[in-house]
Amino acid sequence: MTAEAPSDRTRLRRMHQRGAHDRAAIDPILDAGYLCHVGYTIDGSPYVTPTLYWREGDHVYWHGSSASRMLRKSEGAEVCLTVTHMDGFVLARSGFHHSINYRSVMLFGTARKVEGDGDKLERLKVFTDGLFPGRWDELRPVTDQELKATTLLSMPIAEASAKIRSGPPGDDEEDYALSVWAGVLPVVPQFGAPVPCPRLNGGTPLPAHVTDLARST
Amino acid sequence: MTAEAPSDRTRLRRMHQRGAHDRAAIDPILDAGYLCHVGYTIDGSPYVTPTLYWREGDHVYWHGSSASRMLRKSEGAEVCLTVTHMDGFVLARSGFHHSINYRSVMLFGTARKVEGDGDKLERLKVFTDGLFPGRWDELRPVTDQELKATTLLSMPIAEASAKIRSGPPGDDEEDYALSVWAGVLPVVPQFGAPVPCPRLNGGTPLPAHVTDLARST
Repeated sequence: MTAEAPSDRTRLRRMHQRGAHDRAAIDPILDAGYLCHVGYTIDGSPYVTPTLYWREGDHVYWHGSSASRMLRKSEGAEVCLTVTHMDGFVLARSGFHHSINYRSVMLFGTARKVEGDGDKLERLKVFTDGLFPGRWDELRPVTDQELKATTLLSMPIAEASAKIRSGPPGDDEEDYALSVWAGVLPVVPQFGAPVPCPRLNGGTPLPAHVTDLARST
Repeated sequence: MTAEAPSDRTRLRRMHQRGAHDRAAIDPILDAGYLCHVGYTIDGSPYVTPTLYWREGDHVYWHGSSASRMLRKSEGAEVCLTVTHMDGFVLARSGFHHSINYRSVMLFGTARKVEGDGDKLERLKVFTDGLFPGRWDELRPVTDQELKATTLLSMPIAEASAKIRSGPPGDDEEDYALSVWAGVLPVVPQFGAPVPCPRLNGGTPLPAHVTDLARST
């Protein structure tokens, strides 16, 4: 499963069988999520901020207010962007072998600002339509002022590693005879019923891009 | 909602109305989760690693293999531990006002190793029983070797901030008249049906501490 590590910091030090460096492992994990945690430093101290992200080809993108400290401190700086899907609790016969099933990706690199209004708008459209297909064109268009107030960062998917655990607990051989319940309790993210805005313009129908997503889980 | 910021790095720079520094806001967010993202640095570069955590009183704890790079590099070092609950997508009439509903906490401090076998065992019991009440005493006891192979870190909840967004989209006043569907698509984490280990000792019943958790969502 493992390809060559692209750098020392993505070298998998433990549980090699759980890790991978190839895009065939990395991209599906990135594409299955939308929330990441971005790590950056300020005066040498680590900070971790949750934010939405999306992938387009060989890059990941994230964005926010141009006033955001996270975006200002990440731009042109080294970051670590981590995406984690928690898939289940793994209950073993001993405390020691309890674990979780998960899929995670760590990306390292330097965050760069996306410049150019056309490029920014196109990336935001891809982001929006990636979650809610067709929504972008239904929205009130973005104003110049709004675009200016939005910072968009990108990072190439170059220095990356994926780590995956799945399947039942791995217990010590002699423990399998114990009458302790063991197995996996899956965690399944789901969408609830859409809640219309109290000020929704009367008669506005619930679009397919919301119902389809709500049904997808 | 806001109390005095305990430090400059927890001072809420933007969206003050969404933030808080008091334990009445912070503790429920910590207690509602189990997965955090720990930020630390190696040679000045940021790293973000997902791991399980738990709270006991005024401390958070996390643990893993003594060989874990994250634990070795975090011990005695500055870390940022972030917990995020994604509660829903907020769909507005303009792209600019799209948002997410979430609850998050950032904790800053120095991670300390929990020493002493008795203390370590007690913490691990609290962690296990916190998720699965009564499970600890049903398990095959921890061996000295396993305890030695486990590193447990703790950090006081001292320098912390919480951030929360909830409720419907906040659109520009003139946009409420548009016939664009707006509202919230809630994200609801759920547990799936427990999957017994294929090597489960015949007749071992599913314990209440698993079914109760599975039913809790």
